[in-house]
Amino acid sequence: MTQEWKNNGALAENTVHAKIEDAFWSNYRSLVRDVVLPYQWEALNDRIPGAEKSYAVQNFKIAAGLEQGQFGGMVFQDSDIAKWLEAIGYVLQEQRDPELEAIADEMISILEKAQLEDGYLNTYYTLKEPGKRWTNLAECHELYVAGHFMEAAVAYYEATGKTPLLDLVCRMTDNIADVFGDGPGQLPGYDGHPEVELALIKLYRATGNQKYLDLSNYFLNKRGQQPNFFEEEAEKRGWTGHWHPGPMKLEPEYWQSHKPVVEMDTAVGHAVRMVYLCAGMADVARINGDEAMKAACERLWTNIASRQMYVTGGIGSMAQGEAFSVDYDLPNDTAYSETCASIGLIFFAWRMLQMSPQRKYADVMERALYNTVLAGMAKDGRHFFYVNPLEVEPHVCEGKNLGFNHVKPVRQEWFGCACCPPNIARLIASLGDYLYTVQNDTVFAHLYIGGKATVQVKGQDVMLDQQAELPWSGNVRFQVQTALPVSFALALRVPEWSRGARLLVNGQESILVTPEADGYFHLEREWKDGDTIELALEMPVLRLYSHPKVRADAGKVALQRGPLVYCLEEADNGPLLSQVWLSRSESSAPIQPEWDEELLDGMIVLHAEAWRMERPDSDRDTLYHADRPPVTKPFHAVFIPYYAWANRGKGEMTVWVKEQPQLG
Amino acid sequence: MTQEWKNNGALAENTVHAKIEDAFWSNYRSLVRDVVLPYQWEALNDRIPGAEKSYAVQNFKIAAGLEQGQFGGMVFQDSDIAKWLEAIGYVLQEQRDPELEAIADEMISILEKAQLEDGYLNTYYTLKEPGKRWTNLAECHELYVAGHFMEAAVAYYEATGKTPLLDLVCRMTDNIADVFGDGPGQLPGYDGHPEVELALIKLYRATGNQKYLDLSNYFLNKRGQQPNFFEEEAEKRGWTGHWHPGPMKLEPEYWQSHKPVVEMDTAVGHAVRMVYLCAGMADVARINGDEAMKAACERLWTNIASRQMYVTGGIGSMAQGEAFSVDYDLPNDTAYSETCASIGLIFFAWRMLQMSPQRKYADVMERALYNTVLAGMAKDGRHFFYVNPLEVEPHVCEGKNLGFNHVKPVRQEWFGCACCPPNIARLIASLGDYLYTVQNDTVFAHLYIGGKATVQVKGQDVMLDQQAELPWSGNVRFQVQTALPVSFALALRVPEWSRGARLLVNGQESILVTPEADGYFHLEREWKDGDTIELALEMPVLRLYSHPKVRADAGKVALQRGPLVYCLEEADNGPLLSQVWLSRSESSAPIQPEWDEELLDGMIVLHAEAWRMERPDSDRDTLYHADRPPVTKPFHAVFIPYYAWANRGKGEMTVWVKEQPQLG
Repeated sequence: MTQEWKNNGALAENTVHAKIEDAFWSNYRSLVRDVVLPYQWEALNDRIPGAEKSYAVQNFKIAAGLEQGQFGGMVFQDSDIAKWLEAIGYVLQEQRDPELEAIADEMISILEKAQLEDGYLNTYYTLKEPGKRWTNLAECHELYVAGHFMEAAVAYYEATGKTPLLDLVCRMTDNIADVFGDGPGQLPGYDGHPEVELALIKLYRATGNQKYLDLSNYFLNKRGQQPNFFEEEAEKRGWTGHWHPGPMKLEPEYWQSHKPVVEMDTAVGHAVRMVYLCAGMADVARINGDEAMKAACERLWTNIASRQMYVTGGIGSMAQGEAFSVDYDLPNDTAYSETCASIGLIFFAWRMLQMSPQRKYADVMERALYNTVLAGMAKDGRHFFYVNPLEVEPHVCEGKNLGFNHVKPVRQEWFGCACCPPNIARLIASLGDYLYTVQNDTVFAHLYIGGKATVQVKGQDVMLDQQAELPWSGNVRFQVQTALPVSFALALRVPEWSRGARLLVNGQESILVTPEADGYFHLEREWKDGDTIELALEMPVLRLYSHPKVRADAGKVALQRGPLVYCLEEADNGPLLSQVWLSRSESSAPIQPEWDEELLDGMIVLHAEAWRMERPDSDRDTLYHADRPPVTKPFHAVFIPYYAWANRGKGEMTVWVKEQPQLG
Repeated sequence: MTQEWKNNGALAENTVHAKIEDAFWSNYRSLVRDVVLPYQWEALNDRIPGAEKSYAVQNFKIAAGLEQGQFGGMVFQDSDIAKWLEAIGYVLQEQRDPELEAIADEMISILEKAQLEDGYLNTYYTLKEPGKRWTNLAECHELYVAGHFMEAAVAYYEATGKTPLLDLVCRMTDNIADVFGDGPGQLPGYDGHPEVELALIKLYRATGNQKYLDLSNYFLNKRGQQPNFFEEEAEKRGWTGHWHPGPMKLEPEYWQSHKPVVEMDTAVGHAVRMVYLCAGMADVARINGDEAMKAACERLWTNIASRQMYVTGGIGSMAQGEAFSVDYDLPNDTAYSETCASIGLIFFAWRMLQMSPQRKYADVMERALYNTVLAGMAKDGRHFFYVNPLEVEPHVCEGKNLGFNHVKPVRQEWFGCACCPPNIARLIASLGDYLYTVQNDTVFAHLYIGGKATVQVKGQDVMLDQQAELPWSGNVRFQVQTALPVSFALALRVPEWSRGARLLVNGQESILVTPEADGYFHLEREWKDGDTIELALEMPVLRLYSHPKVRADAGKVALQRGPLVYCLEEADNGPLLSQVWLSRSESSAPIQPEWDEELLDGMIVLHAEAWRMERPDSDRDTLYHADRPPVTKPFHAVFIPYYAWANRGKGEMTVWVKEQPQLG
């Protein structure tokens, strides 16, 4: 259990851990550490008065023989413990904390007692359906839960060097490797909810055990083969289902088992599953040099990013099945756009960057992070959006229209569901892992977030100290610390939102930043200790337009500045936001960014001259009127960053705003 | 069983039957007679190869002891026989037909044999669940089916004077009157699907039997009282449900039992049920002079017509529950807008006109008739829309987006469901009943449709021979035939769509038509035999705008000419209709109506100079692009009447079209 992977060429990890110190992000990270995770721990222990019971810790205590009782919660309830441990691991990577470790170690010792002799670990099947394990992979998340424990084990091990959880998880995984496969008596299957595929790669990285890589590759390539495994296991069970009475309905597209993964070209089904699957595929494609799988990743990426993604980086537009719809079908009001799906999209983007550093992946990663993911959590760390609409009219979502049941105009409390909040927590806690990659002695800077990172380049440790003013300005400063001068290229991402960036090296040479084909500006030189780079990315207000096939956005514009997509809220602009128009010409009154100290923790808002369409008073009560077209009245519109919406009570919100066309 | 009601002052029927001879409508009526009803009869007898079995006739034959077998079809399958018989009745009212009558009489004799000793008639409960009758009023449509037989009996009796069906139905209804009520051993209930309320009024009208009026009044006023009857009967059954396994879910709003009807002010729940209920309420309010119920009718009418109705006269915007949503929530693409609901709205409107002749009711009746109802049936009489969207993009409704499962871009074959097609058939077959009312010696002309009608005014028979060029022009001509001169007012509706109507009496006096407060022009004079009235209603193209709270129509315009709402179809205008704009100013290129002989049976289309928004080619594949706003290209747009859409293959369609605003 050593870090032997570092010596493994094929594995050559090209990621870098940065210790974040950033005006914008440090607050969120403190929130995760000081509020979200402690609160979650209380929730997992059923110690929050009035909250729905979690049962998660209790289930393990019962399975460990420490308490009496029955299993409670969902079939995947165990994964909440895993996600919490994983996030704790990331927090400890930043700063050890004996008190926190003691709590985690205690939990890990319970897990050890709950694990069965053969390595199996899953309290639902241990307590509630003994003897039924691995009989309903399609619906019951067994490998999904196992995957989360793998991720937790690696994070905790990398933070603390402690091996009990990693050892436990390896025993669990070795058992899984025995159970699954094409050999005699083995199950030729895979999980209904992808996750174990990417988790096995982390375990492979941490242990160097090729078996885990091979198992991930097996799960990936088995998926979607004929005969369909989910059909076969259902047949064996007599078509009983876990979730609903009556015979189980087979939905191959929903769980991405409709065709072999290397043949996929369109994102379908449950969005979180799709992107978790893609993340695992990208890992394996990179490590194995699997060109067919890489090509499938690229096709799926292109489909998502150019046909199925909201401007906020949200994916999965359809509430039914929390799923992808058809190309260009991106309704703003009934959007599902689950927070977890955007987190999964970041996982996918990141792995594409590791395989093939191109700006397009980082652009999407940043878009999802600063908009949908950030919108998912309230400032208090205790209220969350699972669904992230781009247009909200509260009286419709809170009324009788059942097509809007999923859309909440205010963030909900943590304990209603346990999926998105811990996912946000683990992403923010591990954000320092998403800033840099090193490829062929080029150091790529993908995200501009302040902090210190040590990169290995030409066998030498180089420390990059980044300071960044994002998302409010595009000023970024790097200072290089190196024992010896070393030549390498620092590839600075030129984000799609920047216009006309310039660069100073050591305060002197002013360079016009023009990206190469990969979207990065490659600054190659011999770096000396104390060298500085000052990057000034221009961050004008952009007017975004959708592809003409996106019916919901036709005739509309969205505003973006830097990585932030903006929106109109009723709190600033009054109701009936669908009647608001921007004129196309900005010559007389351009859109003005302005720092608003009062708004939440302070943020840049956008001021625009706009028009509100109103009907003549005489038609006040008629539903349809002729002859007298609506009149327009100018008003001063205020746009706020999308991530900050719904922090001032309930009201309308819209990202896409009508824009006056220039006809004739 | 005489027509004693004619002597009953309180009943004083103010309806008039017109024998329709009309260039536009006679074709539809022939289609119903020659195609729809014969086809339906074959379907009811399971004689259409490849079609889903109806079982409807077979069920009755089995119940009659004429065949062996089991009940087949839905719990309300019997109603298909009733609706067919009712439509046959209307056809025979126009022209007797011995062959058709023989078929109907044979069916009626089967019904007689199927009827139980005590009068009960319902093959589902007779064959499939004997002993369970009247145990699930909420879900099982027993009184709904009975109501349809009442309507059939009255129509058939009025057409033929034959009494067997009416006698049979009276026995059935007498049994119902024994079963329901507040007396000992009686059921204090009502049906989950209103229908029997309005049907009982027809039976009361045909028989003069006060009991039927009282029973209707009982069902209406019992509805929504506490304790809720549907809850009580469910409790008795142990909460078993008819439609789904597991305990039945009580949905008081869905079936309008959430409050007493006289307290209702907002249309809620299943749209067809709501308007059938309203129709019964309006009947009873009028006949009983029940002011509280009249006021409830008026409130519900106002809610529907001014907050919950599509511009096509469609109602029930929500697919879930085929139901009303919240005020102003009228999405065009996910619209349910069931054909039957618009038919029910016509029933409601007609009864409001009988109670209180005001143009607003006739305007809505006409809007629903010429748009949603007519759109419901294809030119071949064998394909139907149940759902009538106002905006269709086939790749979304036929793709994976489950929120659009209900929306079909082409009309479906008859036999898939048996609800809307026979409803269209019976409405069109009885259309002659919806043209005139006589109130206080004023003859109101509500719809301009050609044909002859005899009205009784001041005790005298007066024949009105109407010729109308609607919906293509507003020219209407009446000739009066009367044995003796008679003074009365002819109240001519001045439709909301007309502008500046003029009138000639006997070709001479040119009168500017200005409506009174009721929306009618009251032409009072002594009418002599041969008098003519020529009414010229101007029929300009109207640009309609929605109430600002209708989010889906914001920034858009709909075109209407006369009673017809128009739409854009892909067949004429290419795809991406959401990118089409009209300019507001018509000064240079007004919208031009033009007769198109080639389009279906010929119709007036509208020609407009329009713009299509396109993105610069350089951004062809990106989902979101900045800097380069879309460009606009002029093109010649063609609008066709909404009722005629989807007759030329599958393609996009939209009623509401973007309109250039005049800002700043």
